[in-house]
Amino acid sequence: MDVTKFAIPEIIFGRGSLNHVGQCVLRLGAKKVLLVSDSGIEEAGWVQQLTDILKKEGVEWVYYSGVSPNPRDHQVKLGAEFYLNNDADVIIAIGGGSALDTAKGIAIIAGNGGKIQDYEGANRVQRPLPPMVFITTTAGSGSDISQFCIITDVERGVKMSIITRTLVPNIAIVDPLILTTKTEKLIIQSAVDALAHAIESYVSRIASPFTEMQSLKAIDLILRNLQHAVQTRSLDSLELLSVASISASMAFSNAGLGAEHALAHSLGGHYDMPHGTVHPILLTAVMRFNLASSVQKYAAIGRVILDKNLGSDLETAKGGIEKLDAFFASFDVSLKLRQEIKEKDKQYLEQICKMAVNDACNLTNPRSASWRELLEICHEVW
Amino acid sequence: MDVTKFAIPEIIFGRGSLNHVGQCVLRLGAKKVLLVSDSGIEEAGWVQQLTDILKKEGVEWVYYSGVSPNPRDHQVKLGAEFYLNNDADVIIAIGGGSALDTAKGIAIIAGNGGKIQDYEGANRVQRPLPPMVFITTTAGSGSDISQFCIITDVERGVKMSIITRTLVPNIAIVDPLILTTKTEKLIIQSAVDALAHAIESYVSRIASPFTEMQSLKAIDLILRNLQHAVQTRSLDSLELLSVASISASMAFSNAGLGAEHALAHSLGGHYDMPHGTVHPILLTAVMRFNLASSVQKYAAIGRVILDKNLGSDLETAKGGIEKLDAFFASFDVSLKLRQEIKEKDKQYLEQICKMAVNDACNLTNPRSASWRELLEICHEVW
Repeated sequence: MDVTKFAIPEIIFGRGSLNHVGQCVLRLGAKKVLLVSDSGIEEAGWVQQLTDILKKEGVEWVYYSGVSPNPRDHQVKLGAEFYLNNDADVIIAIGGGSALDTAKGIAIIAGNGGKIQDYEGANRVQRPLPPMVFITTTAGSGSDISQFCIITDVERGVKMSIITRTLVPNIAIVDPLILTTKTEKLIIQSAVDALAHAIESYVSRIASPFTEMQSLKAIDLILRNLQHAVQTRSLDSLELLSVASISASMAFSNAGLGAEHALAHSLGGHYDMPHGTVHPILLTAVMRFNLASSVQKYAAIGRVILDKNLGSDLETAKGGIEKLDAFFASFDVSLKLRQEIKEKDKQYLEQICKMAVNDACNLTNPRSASWRELLEICHEVW
Repeated sequence: MDVTKFAIPEIIFGRGSLNHVGQCVLRLGAKKVLLVSDSGIEEAGWVQQLTDILKKEGVEWVYYSGVSPNPRDHQVKLGAEFYLNNDADVIIAIGGGSALDTAKGIAIIAGNGGKIQDYEGANRVQRPLPPMVFITTTAGSGSDISQFCIITDVERGVKMSIITRTLVPNIAIVDPLILTTKTEKLIIQSAVDALAHAIESYVSRIASPFTEMQSLKAIDLILRNLQHAVQTRSLDSLELLSVASISASMAFSNAGLGAEHALAHSLGGHYDMPHGTVHPILLTAVMRFNLASSVQKYAAIGRVILDKNLGSDLETAKGGIEKLDAFFASFDVSLKLRQEIKEKDKQYLEQICKMAVNDACNLTNPRSASWRELLEICHEVW
């Protein structure tokens, strides 16, 4: 086996684990914390609950809430200035992928200077980042576990992938109690994002025995629990989706993703579509495109999805993809691009696919994908 | 789910990964490294190879080789003095569990003062340790991955378990090329140690979804590959045993172990028996003792061992234990205590079992085990 690396944060998981946040930052030497979150999380009461814990532990903090969905370069810039002007030394972020990725962007600039565009791509961050403690409220983005950070370059209208080991936070706190305030739409979008992470990482060119097991576990848990979680909102189901998201994140953070995520980033950057909306439209189409390049691996995925083997590896693989189509169709989600993009905006697809081939995620796709092939996939699912 | 924690080092795995050691310590800010190893590893040429890499990267080091099997308290003390007198700032250890645990003991004293006995038990290390980069030569002890450190208190004749999150090294380098110099005996002993880690962690009272998957993966890999690895010494088989050991270590480091390891520590401390010798004798006996307390979990283990279900969970569990007995019998190892302990020394078993009930590993055994029950198990396998 070639040399492979596996890095994850320390994980504190379970109901009530949010209460550990004060001790965590103190252990990391915090004198003044920068807390990053957004108005939605504030309204759900989690920022208040978190700052109550910090107060009780005697931790000082300053608060930055300049976060939007698909976070922007200028939000990162302002946050970094705020961090430096306040002499903060540890970063806590609580939220979905947007708050967490904004915090990662802030950490990069705070520790390395320059502008966030300087770090686009893989392994371009040279100097250490401030210690980070992340609390996810969505169980999907995986930003609390991963070495990935996705920031939109507003001028170019593209989601930049920034990937480096130092972006793995020191500690990830995953408290399933926080997931109880999620909407149905958010439960589905984040689980589907985790599912795409699991599938793409499993077939990635740099998957390893350490990531493959995590990918399959996540696929299994999401297929068996998402419908029940949406229908009942039971804490047990949400907890299992949360385990699935962590597993998928351990996998993709270390194995990378593929052409589907590359496309999702470029589509998302141009049309401001969240990730979770794109996957049910694109994921199985990209799986069919990749199929011939790794039949055995798609058969292993099919076996987990179907819970049985069909006649051959190819049949098992195809059967799994078909069942995945049916799985997506069982939820109230868009299954075609035209449901999300106006006819008049279809013209930008070529330019989007030309950006997508250069996304770092496309490098680990099991089959080389040109922009023409990506465009064909987009037309297929139009 | 109750709050559970999962912490592992950054892992660099694969053929030739040893070459990364220089960059690793530089990344951790090393000015002068303390290198810990022993004469066996020196003779196999690995210390030379490692110091050549350090030299090439311009890293300064001092070398401590005061390591024996079942490492002693006084070796730790001398090593810590050597570390402090030389103003070292990062520790590299290369070797089996003995060299790695000696290095952990040195790190504790270097960072916290006092004597190693002060830290026996769980979570008694308060202050940070020097950064550690560990390279295993055995793929079994798991010391390169785990928060465990086992040091013999010579005066009391007991192996002390020291368990704390800060004992997880910063980076574990696992290079299967290093395993090619292992003897047949060492291949078996270390794989059997990893198997015991996997089984005991799986049924542990504090197992979590993050550890259970790792445990089962390790059991599967060891059952399917050990015989082939012993017969052929193929690098592919050794590599898979190495993956198994890492998986088992991720599991037991975070889920703890059980009564079998508690007994193994006390037996080992008294009779100076290595771990890997004790497991084929004791493991299935402890599994039978525990069986009633967690039939479902032992059935899951049985399913992996047998690769099928029998009529009921209980039958599957028992079938797995029987096949495990046959598996151990297929190697040239002792299956009874009397093969390892002289008849005249049998009298110490009572005292040994009284120590074992207080070993930290006994706390997470799925069934409470008194010293009388442990003694009964020892008589059963005499």
